[in-house]
Amino acid sequence: MKQLKLALMGFGNVGQAFGEMLLDKHEEIQNKYGRDVAVTVIATATKGNIYNEEGINLRRVLEDVKETGRFDARMTTDMDHDRLIREADYDCLMELSPLNIETGQPATDHLIGAITRGKHGITANKGPVAWHFRKLRDMAEENRVGFFYETVVMDGTPVFNLVEHTLKMVRVTQVTGILNSTTNFILEELEKGCDMDDIMARGRAMGFIEADPAMDIEGYDAAGKITALLNVLMDAGITPDQVERKGIEDITVEDIADAKARGKVIKLLCRGTRDEQGNVIATVGPEEIPRDHMLASMNSTTSVVSITTDLMKTVSVVEHEPEIMQTAYGVFSDMLRVMELEG
Amino acid sequence: MKQLKLALMGFGNVGQAFGEMLLDKHEEIQNKYGRDVAVTVIATATKGNIYNEEGINLRRVLEDVKETGRFDARMTTDMDHDRLIREADYDCLMELSPLNIETGQPATDHLIGAITRGKHGITANKGPVAWHFRKLRDMAEENRVGFFYETVVMDGTPVFNLVEHTLKMVRVTQVTGILNSTTNFILEELEKGCDMDDIMARGRAMGFIEADPAMDIEGYDAAGKITALLNVLMDAGITPDQVERKGIEDITVEDIADAKARGKVIKLLCRGTRDEQGNVIATVGPEEIPRDHMLASMNSTTSVVSITTDLMKTVSVVEHEPEIMQTAYGVFSDMLRVMELEG
Repeated sequence: MKQLKLALMGFGNVGQAFGEMLLDKHEEIQNKYGRDVAVTVIATATKGNIYNEEGINLRRVLEDVKETGRFDARMTTDMDHDRLIREADYDCLMELSPLNIETGQPATDHLIGAITRGKHGITANKGPVAWHFRKLRDMAEENRVGFFYETVVMDGTPVFNLVEHTLKMVRVTQVTGILNSTTNFILEELEKGCDMDDIMARGRAMGFIEADPAMDIEGYDAAGKITALLNVLMDAGITPDQVERKGIEDITVEDIADAKARGKVIKLLCRGTRDEQGNVIATVGPEEIPRDHMLASMNSTTSVVSITTDLMKTVSVVEHEPEIMQTAYGVFSDMLRVMELEG
Repeated sequence: MKQLKLALMGFGNVGQAFGEMLLDKHEEIQNKYGRDVAVTVIATATKGNIYNEEGINLRRVLEDVKETGRFDARMTTDMDHDRLIREADYDCLMELSPLNIETGQPATDHLIGAITRGKHGITANKGPVAWHFRKLRDMAEENRVGFFYETVVMDGTPVFNLVEHTLKMVRVTQVTGILNSTTNFILEELEKGCDMDDIMARGRAMGFIEADPAMDIEGYDAAGKITALLNVLMDAGITPDQVERKGIEDITVEDIADAKARGKVIKLLCRGTRDEQGNVIATVGPEEIPRDHMLASMNSTTSVVSITTDLMKTVSVVEHEPEIMQTAYGVFSDMLRVMELEG
């Protein structure tokens, strides 16, 4: 049976959940696509790198990582990331490494390395789509390979695929969303009267508040996501630093109570629209939403994107309180796209 | 340029809006699909029938209907519906005729007539998908043609396409929705304290409340839609009469006020799930929803479907206050699927 060989750049929570999903759905993929999936490369920053052109024993690697947090030294290779990307045998590179949202690196260079070798590229990392979308899209087209990134916004919830595969021939005129779970959770908990330190502690325990939450609270994460959305859906050609950005750092408990008294809720909204010159304008900032509006009902870590178009007015898609499985499904569904491309 | 020839069964509001869309997007379709679209048959119950194997002058027909409500007698044919379906030259039949939800006819027979001739079938009518889905699906497969029905639930908002094209390999375990605009509108207006006669008059003026609203109010429309959803998404193999159905006819203003006092809203909910024996169980009935829940925020004629799956938990898709254009887009997008099938 023909194989699809994967190179995984990164093997943290998402990579491991993806590995489990691959093992679970192994047979079903073979039946449906007539094709086997083999992971030939796993490259990480702290656990070591593994390369096996016949296919890595994924079950064993998952067990090792669960037990020891590292790979078994007998399985690892001395080849570094660059060399693996340049020389290893794989058909599709999956970029799952930690994000540098200020540069989109090293994820973008990993993808370029793969694509220029004629390999497909998948990224769970928003950096490449926020900072270098046109370049990567055009490069993939020239090299006749796939470049997929569904996970970048709302995990595996279809947003990019929604427009490309189910809203054919529409023109997107506007995008609105609540895209950052951390700030959404914080604002809601503040409204309930919870203490900020307590909120942060709980969010960290639940796994979605980072050690340093500034990227979320100051709106950088949301800015990266709305940029990615607008670059893909409206061909905006913008970068995150062009987003008019305001976080929730100045929102006080009094602001929230005051809004509440007027029947409103404060949410961190992302918006994109076209100005009269045809340029796409992106904003991120707190807004007061009437309590009976759909956006006000996006509680806890739930996210939403509303897409306004010429032929279908507005369609909204909602991801309800995601878990790591949904992030893994995003790259999993991108992998299925790659298999369809190869026929 | 190769042509896709369409037979339109019905030319009411949806057919006319589809015709306008086709004229607007004519060139774009040629550029994108390398193919021309020609309407060769328009068959109606009250305006007459037109057949022109070279392609009907759609612009003129639309003008005639706008001005006189009928077709120009010089254009019409004596061939009746059955003969047109059996003998006319077309590649794809589009079923846009008025619905009989109690039987799914004559829409189902129209589709069978086309499909057995090796023609593609598209329906905007929920009857065929609610009453005869498996038969039509299998028949289309045997005849190697497309059978598409996106418009049946929430117009052109992707629901069937969402699962098929963007949630590949997931298993749907549960479906929940608010699918009937009329009852949703009525319940909301009753809560605002409006008088029932006044609500009905406004709904009729806005075009979404029928002369006889019993099909909506007693939950038959919702039952047809949840049946269609479950037949397609969960291979339920059920018919609308198997839905445990309760409408809003017994809901009083007092019930609504009482729910409101407890922070709740009454909505007509459709639900489908699998019992322990693996059978799909469908219900339609009024339920009290907490005011801060997403389902409570579906105001006016807005609809929602929430799809729960094994790999992606719950994804919801929302259609906001649709107009006739969105219904037309549903069959338009099905037509694009047909063009892709033919390659």
